[in-house]
Amino acid sequence: MKKIIRLIIGSGESCADIRYASGISTPDSFIFYVYDEIRCAIMSPLEIDRARANAKPGVTVAAESEYNGPRRVEILSAIAKRCHCRDFLVPGDFPLALAEKMRHAGLTVAVAEDSFFPEREFKASAEVQFITAAQRAAEAGLARAVDILKKSSIDGEYLAYNGKVLTSEFLRAEIDCEILRNGMLPTGTICAGGSQGAQPHNAGSGPLKAHAPVVMDIFPRSPESGYWGDLTRTVVRGRASAVVRRAYEAVLEAREYCKSLIRPGAFGAEIHCAAEGILEGHGFFTGSNDAGQFGFFHGLGHGVGMEIHENPRLSPRARTALRGGEVVTVEPGLYYPEWGGIRLEDLVWLSGSGEAVCLTTAPDFLEI
Amino acid sequence: MKKIIRLIIGSGESCADIRYASGISTPDSFIFYVYDEIRCAIMSPLEIDRARANAKPGVTVAAESEYNGPRRVEILSAIAKRCHCRDFLVPGDFPLALAEKMRHAGLTVAVAEDSFFPEREFKASAEVQFITAAQRAAEAGLARAVDILKKSSIDGEYLAYNGKVLTSEFLRAEIDCEILRNGMLPTGTICAGGSQGAQPHNAGSGPLKAHAPVVMDIFPRSPESGYWGDLTRTVVRGRASAVVRRAYEAVLEAREYCKSLIRPGAFGAEIHCAAEGILEGHGFFTGSNDAGQFGFFHGLGHGVGMEIHENPRLSPRARTALRGGEVVTVEPGLYYPEWGGIRLEDLVWLSGSGEAVCLTTAPDFLEI
Repeated sequence: MKKIIRLIIGSGESCADIRYASGISTPDSFIFYVYDEIRCAIMSPLEIDRARANAKPGVTVAAESEYNGPRRVEILSAIAKRCHCRDFLVPGDFPLALAEKMRHAGLTVAVAEDSFFPEREFKASAEVQFITAAQRAAEAGLARAVDILKKSSIDGEYLAYNGKVLTSEFLRAEIDCEILRNGMLPTGTICAGGSQGAQPHNAGSGPLKAHAPVVMDIFPRSPESGYWGDLTRTVVRGRASAVVRRAYEAVLEAREYCKSLIRPGAFGAEIHCAAEGILEGHGFFTGSNDAGQFGFFHGLGHGVGMEIHENPRLSPRARTALRGGEVVTVEPGLYYPEWGGIRLEDLVWLSGSGEAVCLTTAPDFLEI
Repeated sequence: MKKIIRLIIGSGESCADIRYASGISTPDSFIFYVYDEIRCAIMSPLEIDRARANAKPGVTVAAESEYNGPRRVEILSAIAKRCHCRDFLVPGDFPLALAEKMRHAGLTVAVAEDSFFPEREFKASAEVQFITAAQRAAEAGLARAVDILKKSSIDGEYLAYNGKVLTSEFLRAEIDCEILRNGMLPTGTICAGGSQGAQPHNAGSGPLKAHAPVVMDIFPRSPESGYWGDLTRTVVRGRASAVVRRAYEAVLEAREYCKSLIRPGAFGAEIHCAAEGILEGHGFFTGSNDAGQFGFFHGLGHGVGMEIHENPRLSPRARTALRGGEVVTVEPGLYYPEWGGIRLEDLVWLSGSGEAVCLTTAPDFLEI
């Protein structure tokens, strides 16, 4: 095999591969390359001390000035010279402008077909612990929300808390504060009530109604480890309607059954389709009309690690089998604009020995 | 001029250009193109309803299915066909893999030399209001921290609050909770005490010392508008040492003098150098040794808008003149590993009429 320099440029905060490989988390992007036994991060003066403190064993941290920096293309030419190799392999999202400058400087740039670090799919026990810690913060945030909902009074159509109308914004801020106090970072918490809950990505806004489902999807990240948790529960403060109760039971059954299918050799598509079957068996069909999509129209689950959405997928197109080591969400949902949404999401680790371990401890209930 | 399709692919949350041009904020990336009078966002089924609700006037929101989606290269070929134009102009960070697939499909892809939307530097009054709103949340977070520091007791070398050792992590979580309760998103808040404050990017960790400076750099973002605020203050709970007091006075003088230099026609480099001159005049020199860099070794300021760091820069290499409409930080700092750091950051809007308006209302004091 021809030798090639594997190159990533990214910030530790937003590029999971560079953080996974280097151990370094930064707000600004930096250069990381792998060649033979060399794994080297090249840092700006502002970041070098912190990078040295955090780098994984075996990773060399060098200053831009040692590589003709700070201009990127000059640093990359210096790397080529040191390695006696002008050929680079980069991820698909590598910036086009820099690739063109590199080619202009006489370097070759090839795009990797596959993931740079496919081993990210298979978690070591330390990684499972990091994910579990983030999951506990999500659960603390959920518990805070449930407490507020319990203490809310039903004031006609809407909920009130401490004498004020309870809003999605207030509930989200309180969940997020609880996550912060647990040492994790909240990111995009969803608190979507009533018909807003029928849009799976709607974060929720405005007053929350009594007797209507509130979808709470909570996915905090650990600032230290970079790993995420992911948790969704849907509750009703007051009395759920008959259709909401039926939808809840169907989604819960689908989630529990699909969790039982997680084992080595199972295909993501097969598990996804099992959820579809159960939901349809309960009379909940999927389709679209002028008001948009309805039913169950997203993937059943996804891997969680240093990215909130990563491989493997539990979706209709997921044609690879689970092997052991994966951490995946199982999150069936039903969405109908007439009454809103129900989504129930657990996190499951398929251990190396082939056992499916649920990492979520939050209880399940609909009405509070 | 040859006609060309200007193309951006990004998520509304992380790509300021696409959010600025489309008004759409999404966690996942989408396609946006500009051609003649057409400004069009192409959305996945999961995002289309929200995108339609949020799109700026004049922006068309189309479904992937209308453009042979969901595969990106097929959507782009469909755009080319509709526009009767196969030539695309993309930003420098456009993903290399997709550019290569486009070329393979017979499309041309050129990289823009300059910013797609250079007008982002010059803020309309609504944008200044969005920035000011985020700045008020930063100030609320700071006020909360100052209150906690005031109520802290001095327990030997360290601070204690409510009977526990006061840590950077606790103080940061409380600042961030206050920001959340003000409806904004905290992002990377810095609370760095003592020698940690000598590293401008160190977020701070562990117990906070009495009688030592605590650098608090707070930059929340509005989830609705996407605009940021940016505020830094440095305080000492207890008695500051003589050198810390002198450094504080020097930095405050530099900040105030440099704010007075912000006017149409002024060059960023010139304002930066004025700060250097004042700090040196107070006997604070810049350099590096085995322990790293010391003195004043970052840019004086940067534009703030839909990115936390954007043009224009107030830095040694900033060779363009201010024109009016810019919002910039002015944040001189001094950093010495022996005692830590002092940074004082205000936000200034250079109005269209040429008046410099300070958007920061947080008071200045050192000891509390």
